Amino acid sequence: MSSSDIFIGETIGTAVLILLGGGVCAAVTLKASKARNAGWLAITFGWGFAVLTAVYTSAPLSGAHLNPAVTLALAIKDNDWSNVPAYWAGQLLGAMIGAALVWVAYYGQFLAHLTDREIVGGPGAQDTKAVEAQEAQAGPVLGIFSTGPEIRNAVQNLATEILGTIVLVLAVLTQGLNDSGKGLGTLGALVTALVVVSIGLSLGGPTGYAINPARDLGPRIVHALLPLPNKGGSDWGYAWVPVVGPLVGGAIAAGIYNVAFA
Amino acid sequence: MSSSDIFIGETIGTAVLILLGGGVCAAVTLKASKARNAGWLAITFGWGFAVLTAVYTSAPLSGAHLNPAVTLALAIKDNDWSNVPAYWAGQLLGAMIGAALVWVAYYGQFLAHLTDREIVGGPGAQDTKAVEAQEAQAGPVLGIFSTGPEIRNAVQNLATEILGTIVLVLAVLTQGLNDSGKGLGTLGALVTALVVVSIGLSLGGPTGYAINPARDLGPRIVHALLPLPNKGGSDWGYAWVPVVGPLVGGAIAAGIYNVAFA
Amino acid sequence: MSSSDIFIGETIGTAVLILLGGGVCAAVTLKASKARNAGWLAITFGWGFAVLTAVYTSAPLSGAHLNPAVTLALAIKDNDWSNVPAYWAGQLLGAMIGAALVWVAYYGQFLAHLTDREIVGGPGAQDTKAVEAQEAQAGPVLGIFSTGPEIRNAVQNLATEILGTIVLVLAVLTQGLNDSGKGLGTLGALVTALVVVSIGLSLGGPTGYAINPARDLGPRIVHALLPLPNKGGSDWGYAWVPVVGPLVGGAIAAGIYNVAFA
Amino acid sequence: MSSSDIFIGETIGTAVLILLGGGVCAAVTLKASKARNAGWLAITFGWGFAVLTAVYTSAPLSGAHLNPAVTLALAIKDNDWSNVPAYWAGQLLGAMIGAALVWVAYYGQFLAHLTDREIVGGPGAQDTKAVEAQEAQAGPVLGIFSTGPEIRNAVQNLATEILGTIVLVLAVLTQGLNDSGKGLGTLGALVTALVVVSIGLSLGGPTGYAINPARDLGPRIVHALLPLPNKGGSDWGYAWVPVVGPLVGGAIAAGIYNVAFA
Repeated sequence: MSSSDIFIGETIGTAVLILLGGGVCAAVTLKASKARNAGWLAITFGWGFAVLTAVYTSAPLSGAHLNPAVTLALAIKDNDWSNVPAYWAGQLLGAMIGAALVWVAYYGQFLAHLTDREIVGGPGAQDTKAVEAQEAQAGPVLGIFSTGPEIRNAVQNLATEILGTIVLVLAVLTQGLNDSGKGLGTLGALVTALVVVSIGLSLGGPTGYAINPARDLGPRIVHALLPLPNKGGSDWGYAWVPVVGPLVGGAIAAGIYNVAFA
Repeated sequence: MSSSDIFIGETIGTAVLILLGGGVCAAVTLKASKARNAGWLAITFGWGFAVLTAVYTSAPLSGAHLNPAVTLALAIKDNDWSNVPAYWAGQLLGAMIGAALVWVAYYGQFLAHLTDREIVGGPGAQDTKAVEAQEAQAGPVLGIFSTGPEIRNAVQNLATEILGTIVLVLAVLTQGLNDSGKGLGTLGALVTALVVVSIGLSLGGPTGYAINPARDLGPRIVHALLPLPNKGGSDWGYAWVPVVGPLVGGAIAAGIYNVAFA
Repeated sequence: MSSSDIFIGETIGTAVLILLGGGVCAAVTLKASKARNAGWLAITFGWGFAVLTAVYTSAPLSGAHLNPAVTLALAIKDNDWSNVPAYWAGQLLGAMIGAALVWVAYYGQFLAHLTDREIVGGPGAQDTKAVEAQEAQAGPVLGIFSTGPEIRNAVQNLATEILGTIVLVLAVLTQGLNDSGKGLGTLGALVTALVVVSIGLSLGGPTGYAINPARDLGPRIVHALLPLPNKGGSDWGYAWVPVVGPLVGGAIAAGIYNVAFA
Repeated sequence: MSSSDIFIGETIGTAVLILLGGGVCAAVTLKASKARNAGWLAITFGWGFAVLTAVYTSAPLSGAHLNPAVTLALAIKDNDWSNVPAYWAGQLLGAMIGAALVWVAYYGQFLAHLTDREIVGGPGAQDTKAVEAQEAQAGPVLGIFSTGPEIRNAVQNLATEILGTIVLVLAVLTQGLNDSGKGLGTLGALVTALVVVSIGLSLGGPTGYAINPARDLGPRIVHALLPLPNKGGSDWGYAWVPVVGPLVGGAIAAGIYNVAFA
């Protein structure tokens, strides 16, 4: 695979991943969406099948890493770092494009949700206090872009993200062994998707399972840039956790693989 | 494949698609249905597995396009337009047959739902006003046949349908590359079904994801023709969006494919 | 396959099918069940994965028909009726064994549900009227064994069962064409399971989708025989619909197959 | 496979199984979890996909039994008991590691849940009575680790666990026949996962479907050892049921297999 194929493949695939993954969060969260309040199962299946679709639409070009932690783990496993920059750049760019496309697809819903009188302080309210209150509770809208913890505790939050990513990356790395070297083919894509559903259902409760630095950082940048009214802060104080945690988890998974399976 | 095999296959497959896809909307919407209020996850899985079943029961004859946007994209990709009329005709006819069969399967439920006293204006009410009010809120019954937007904004509605169709068609086009040229076999059908679940969960919130001109237009025609009491209008003002949007999306997906993957 | 292998395979497979299929109805319906009120999606996935498990545990012996309508359709398609008696006998016996095993697995739940004071007429109530009322509303317990219509209309109920069975059998018959003659292997079993989920979600609303004469008749006989208190009647007046409808549907599907696909 | 590969594989795989399976119970049960009250379907899919992930991450080393009842059944089927100790030891150790990791991932949620004023007896309450009441209702927290019956009846509880395990083990044993001897490959892992979802949906209502002695005993030991406040008892009186039931079920399934399929 050439560097440009890798970059283009990861950009397309990660854009699809975040368009669909951020999309299900918008669908379930925003006013005037047919899927409003569809529940946690909808969110976890939505992200899982987003992975399936994204792998499918990028694997022929780049092998469909779509996650800097997967790229890191494969680089450690094979001790080959030559393509890491192309993968990471495509992943971050794709994640930003995907987040912007969520905004396009749900444009009217974002507006209706964020400018709703009931939310910003009752009929006619435009005072500073109401806007501040709105910003304080803007979590749901930031939650369409990036993850955030239910209980803010850097040690536990890191631990949860590390554990989730170890499971994900170990399943990706052992795929070649299970599929007799066929790599990320159709069945592999399906299994990876269901592993992501599993991690969401089982380990998503505390932090919202970023398990992917690009998935969290790219959309957070877009949240900071988009001209959304009453959107609240982008919570940069937490932003390092879903970057560092998954990278550490990916590295640990590569280590387990090299010791136990290689 | 002969033109007649294509026409028959697409007619059967699209009839199955709409019987099952429209069926889940009827099941979740209508009074006296065991599935009433089963929720958005039921609707999205219902449509996804409808695609699986429809592909299975038509692929041996026609290759299972079942969607004019897919047919258009494959014609652009291969620059071969000879079979487009047979595909499109079968798809529209099949969609109309499927919608009529939904009415057969849920005949009593439609009647109970549409002639309910509570709905048309309280006990004994038969006055014009009540019927008008009924027509105004008849969306749910039209929604069993065709899609409609939560927020009516042609630009956003088109954008959402275009984005959803790009994702769908890109996944269909890359299937040959992922499956080593096997095309729409059993695994491909399963993946396409789950991609449709994904699009429903993630991009279905604003417009109800037609992503298929025949799926929307055929049942809308049947809605206009069926002798249902109090059925309300067929919302022809919106009908062009779920036709034009998916066709534009399919063409863009074919362009992306030809530039990045071919 | 020998007649005895067919009979044993169908008995085991259909017993597993009804143990799991009836089991999910018990799980969702009965008091003191952890799954109580788990919803329609749980029921439809429960029946679908019951089919998967049942096919898996019988296909090596009998090819896993598990449904007299499937056996009939294959006999029509191949014009070979020699094994029909062995298939049908195993299916009916297996369905009865499965229904009895549901009673074993949920023994305490049945008792708690059926002898509950609140249900049979308030504290201390033992009078005839309360028992009659109980019998009148015993639908939920009969519903663990057999299907029943929401709106009793023989023509519509038959039509719905016929349509559902046509879809099921057509998907089973075309499997050989989609899988290049591999028949009901692992992937075929999975697809059939998801087709059954689809039919449940989409066409299950009016009658509860028997789409299988043995699935309905065997458990209804067991319901009539079991010593359950306050169990109500077995609704023999409806029993012919889920037998005749699926057989007609299977025959029609075989006809469609022979005309369009053979 | 060497004994050490078996031991390591089973330890890793069962740790993943219980991290994800116990994780979904924590996610749905505990306060301050995004998945709280996500419902029975989330639990059953969570456990099913936990099996998929666990099989994937251990099959290359040990063949992924992950369940003493499966190991017993295979030993009976092949009359080869040499590796049983390595399998069982890895399974029990892995289950304990997995349960401890659930505690790490949900550390803050456990604390918030168990020390909540509302739960332990209203504002300021610290008296013995409140703590006793808390212990009496601590079921939900024990339920994150181990199973328990809704109606305590050793005969029925055993019967339900035996039936569930027969279905599971029969599906595992017939896999080799369905997949033409490929054993627990990718597709086999997926089918086994969905069989586990099926058993959960259909037979999980009365006892919570241990169907695996290590899955229940290992986490129960960890529950007894962990320094959780107000955690309540570990219900050792019931602990033998989910050990004996699955072992008996596995043995019966091996017998059925040897008589009917071998």
